[in-house]
Amino acid sequence: MQKLKELIKRIKERANINLLHMDFDVGPYLPEETTLEQIPKFCALCGLSPHHPLHFQFSQSCLAGSYFLDRCVVLSSVIYKSDIRGDELKRKGETFKVDGVTIPMYEDEEIHIKDSFLAKTLVHNYSHEPNSPETFYIHSTVSMPYANIHGSPVTGSFLGVGSTIDLTTVQSSVVGEFSYVQTGEMGHHILPPGRIWVASHGNFDFKYSYDQKILEQYVKHPPGGVAGGKIVDFARQREHDFELVFESLRAQSGQTPQRSALSPYAIIKGDCHMDRNVFVAQRAYLEDAYLGPGANAQENCFIIQSHLEGENVTAHGGKIINARMGRKIFVGFNSFIQGSDDQGLVVGKNSIIMPHTIIDLAAPLEIPEATLVWGYVNNAETLAQNSMPLEKFAQINGDHQQGAMTFSGSGGSFVNAFKNRIDHILEVNGAYFDGQSGLGHAQLSRDISFNIIQPFPEGELRGMYPNVDIRL
Amino acid sequence: MQKLKELIKRIKERANINLLHMDFDVGPYLPEETTLEQIPKFCALCGLSPHHPLHFQFSQSCLAGSYFLDRCVVLSSVIYKSDIRGDELKRKGETFKVDGVTIPMYEDEEIHIKDSFLAKTLVHNYSHEPNSPETFYIHSTVSMPYANIHGSPVTGSFLGVGSTIDLTTVQSSVVGEFSYVQTGEMGHHILPPGRIWVASHGNFDFKYSYDQKILEQYVKHPPGGVAGGKIVDFARQREHDFELVFESLRAQSGQTPQRSALSPYAIIKGDCHMDRNVFVAQRAYLEDAYLGPGANAQENCFIIQSHLEGENVTAHGGKIINARMGRKIFVGFNSFIQGSDDQGLVVGKNSIIMPHTIIDLAAPLEIPEATLVWGYVNNAETLAQNSMPLEKFAQINGDHQQGAMTFSGSGGSFVNAFKNRIDHILEVNGAYFDGQSGLGHAQLSRDISFNIIQPFPEGELRGMYPNVDIRL
Repeated sequence: MQKLKELIKRIKERANINLLHMDFDVGPYLPEETTLEQIPKFCALCGLSPHHPLHFQFSQSCLAGSYFLDRCVVLSSVIYKSDIRGDELKRKGETFKVDGVTIPMYEDEEIHIKDSFLAKTLVHNYSHEPNSPETFYIHSTVSMPYANIHGSPVTGSFLGVGSTIDLTTVQSSVVGEFSYVQTGEMGHHILPPGRIWVASHGNFDFKYSYDQKILEQYVKHPPGGVAGGKIVDFARQREHDFELVFESLRAQSGQTPQRSALSPYAIIKGDCHMDRNVFVAQRAYLEDAYLGPGANAQENCFIIQSHLEGENVTAHGGKIINARMGRKIFVGFNSFIQGSDDQGLVVGKNSIIMPHTIIDLAAPLEIPEATLVWGYVNNAETLAQNSMPLEKFAQINGDHQQGAMTFSGSGGSFVNAFKNRIDHILEVNGAYFDGQSGLGHAQLSRDISFNIIQPFPEGELRGMYPNVDIRL
Repeated sequence: MQKLKELIKRIKERANINLLHMDFDVGPYLPEETTLEQIPKFCALCGLSPHHPLHFQFSQSCLAGSYFLDRCVVLSSVIYKSDIRGDELKRKGETFKVDGVTIPMYEDEEIHIKDSFLAKTLVHNYSHEPNSPETFYIHSTVSMPYANIHGSPVTGSFLGVGSTIDLTTVQSSVVGEFSYVQTGEMGHHILPPGRIWVASHGNFDFKYSYDQKILEQYVKHPPGGVAGGKIVDFARQREHDFELVFESLRAQSGQTPQRSALSPYAIIKGDCHMDRNVFVAQRAYLEDAYLGPGANAQENCFIIQSHLEGENVTAHGGKIINARMGRKIFVGFNSFIQGSDDQGLVVGKNSIIMPHTIIDLAAPLEIPEATLVWGYVNNAETLAQNSMPLEKFAQINGDHQQGAMTFSGSGGSFVNAFKNRIDHILEVNGAYFDGQSGLGHAQLSRDISFNIIQPFPEGELRGMYPNVDIRL
C-alpha cells in the first residue's frame, strides 16, 4: 500500500503548511500503518437518483466506506467511512442571497475535495460562501471522527473529534474536540476543545465553554493517542452494526409508510415506528424509536428507546436515549441526550437543544416547552444554569452572562435565526408535504440505487481507488 | 424506462440494416416491455486487479448483471447478465503472429461494444484479427442467451441461442441456434441451426449437422417465442442460484488451496474438491464436483456429480453431469455431457469432446482414451458413428465422411490445432504453475475486488446506467 502511505504524507504536508503559524501539527492525528490496513475492507457508495444531477469524479484517492450523492470531485484525498451528502447543492439558474444581495448561479454547484483526510466525517452542503458559489471546497484539511463539515467551505484546517463547523467558511484554523462554530467566517484561529460559538456579525454573539474535566469524560483525543470518552465510545460500540449493513448490496428495507424515506443504510432495531413524511438518513441508528409525522433522523444520529412526537429534527450526530420528546423539538449536531432510564427525560414541545449539548441524567428530569438548552446538564440545578425559556432569551438586548455562557447583542435575532433554520430543515426534509406540495428528502429519497466502488485488493495500489468518473 | 426502449429500437435498426440482404429481422428476438422491467433488478460488476490494465467506459447503455475485467468500452448497448472477460487482451509492446507475420502492438487492446444487444452472452477476447489488432469490436450485433463470442470481432450479425463464434471475424451473418463456427472469417453467411463448422483455409474443413428433430429437443428458439429445450431449460433452472450470489457484495469464498482461484461469483454446492492450480471462473456452477490439479472450469460451465482427474478444460458453457473424466480431457463450448446416473459416463484421458457435442445417455457408456467426439451421442452405436480415435483421425488426408460429419484436408493439422489450443488454455489458466513459473488465471485471479454499477431506479432513465469512466 505504498501509494496510500505517500498520499497520507502529502495530505499531512498540505495541511501543516497552512497551520504553520498556529504551531499545530496534524501528523499525530493521521493513521499509522496498522490502521491503514483496515481501509481496503470498505467500499465507496455513489447514490444514483433521478432527482440529483450526477457527476462524481474521484482521482488518486481512497474513499473507504464513504457515501456520495450529487456532484462531487475528490482529488488526492482519503475519505474514510464518511457521508458526503450533496442533496442541497445549488443548481444552475437558481439564485441565493448573501446579506440581502442576490447572487445568480451560472453552473450547478459541486463539492470539491482535495489534499484532505476526512475520517468518519459528515459533509453536508448548503453553503452560502459568496466567493465560490458554484464550488463547495474542502482543501488541505484533516478532520477527525464524528466531526461535521456542514455548509462550511474549509481550507488548511484541522477539525478535532466530534467538532462541527456550521455555515462558516474556515481557513487555516484548528477546531478543538467537540467544539462548534457558526460564525460565518473564521480564519487563523484556534478554537479550544468544548467551545460553542454562534455569532452573526453586528447581531449577536453566543459563547459557551465546557469545563475541561467534564468534557474529557465525554470526548477526548490526546495527540498520537486514541480518541475516547463516553460519547466517542457510544458511537464506536455501534459501528459494527453499520459494517454489516454496508456489506449487503441490497440492504433490508424496513416498512415505511408512503411519503417517507428510510435509507437502506440506516439501522433499524427493535420496535420502531415511522410515520408519514419521516426521513431517516443513511447511518442513522434507530432502536425502539417512535418517529411521529414529519420527524427526521439525520446521518449519524442515534434514537434509542425514545418517543419523538413529530416534526422533530435530530441533526447529524445527535443522540437521544431514554427520552420523550414533544412536537417540533430541535436537537442540534452531536448533542448527547440521555434520560436516566425508560423516558427518564421529558422535553416539552418547541424546545431547542443547541448543538453539542450534553444532557446526561441519573434521575428523571423534565424540560418545559419552548426552552433553549445549551452546554452540560446533569440535573435540575445545571438545567437551570444552562437553559432559558425561548421567550425570555428573545428579550435579551446587550450583554448577558449565565454560568459558562456569555451572550451579547439581540436575543430576538438569535432565537429567530434558530427558528427559521429549523423550519428550513423541516421543509427540505419533506416534513410538511401535503400530498401535492412540499416535496423533500422524505419523498425524493425513496428510490436511490448505489454504485459501489472498491479499492485495489493488493500490490502497491492496495487501498487506493481507481480513477472514476460517473455522470448522467 | 423511455430511454431504454429507445435504445432497443436503435440497436434493432443498426443490426437489421446490416442483415438486410440476408432477409433476417432481429426484431422478434429483442425483449418486450415485460422483459425490460426485469433489467433494473441487476447490476454491473467491474473487476479490479493489479494484474489488468484498467479502463472501463460505459455510455448511454444498460449493463444489467454484467461482469467486466480489463479495458472495455460500451456505447449505446444493452448487455444483460453477460460476462465480458478481458484477461487475455494484448498489451502495448507485445507482438502476435498472423499467418507467420509478426504484428507489433502500439497500444493496449480494448474491447469496444457499440449498438449491440448481448443477453447472457459470454465474450472472451484473444482475437487475432489483423485489421484491428488493438480493438476487439462488437458492433450492431444481437446475440441470444448462452451464446459465446470468443476471440471473434463481430459486426452487424445475429447469434442464436447457444451459438458460438470462435476465433472468427464475423460480418453481416446469422448464426443459428446451437451452431458453432471457427473458420477465421465469415461474412454475409447464414449458418443454419445445429451446424458445427471448423475450417482452416488450405488445411482442413470439418462440418457436422445436427438432425433438426433431435436438436429441437435440446435447443430451440422460434422467432417471437421463448427459447427452450433440454439444454436451455437446464441452465435456466439454475439461474436463481446466481442471482443470490450476485446480490451479495462479499460473496462467500469457498476454501481453495494455494495457487488456485475460485471466483466469489461461482456457485459451489455439495461436496466439492478443488486441487492446486485450479481455476473456477465467475458463473461456473460446481455441485459434488472433484477438480484435480490444473483443472479449469470456465464461465457458464456446470460440473455436477462428476470427477475430473486433472488438467481438464471445461470450456465456456460446457456441462458435465454424472461423469468420470480422465486426465487432460477437453470439453468444448456449450457441450452437454450427461451420464445415465452416478458416473454412468467414463471418458478416457486425452480425449477431445468437440464444442457443441451432446452426449445424453440412458445406460452407462465408456469412451476410450484419446478419442475425438462430436455431434450427438446417446448410446454405443451413435458413439461409433460420431467419434474416432485421435490417432486415426490424424491420418486422414483428403475427403472423409462419417454419418452427418464431412471432413476434407489434413486430419493431422486438425488434431494438432486442437492439441495446441488445449495446451494454450491450460497454460493461460495456470495449470502448469510450478511455484515459480507458469503463472495464469488460477494464480492471478485470486485477488479481485469489484466495482458495482447500478441503473437509475426510476423515471425515464430507469434501467439505463450512468455514464461511467473507471481507470487506473
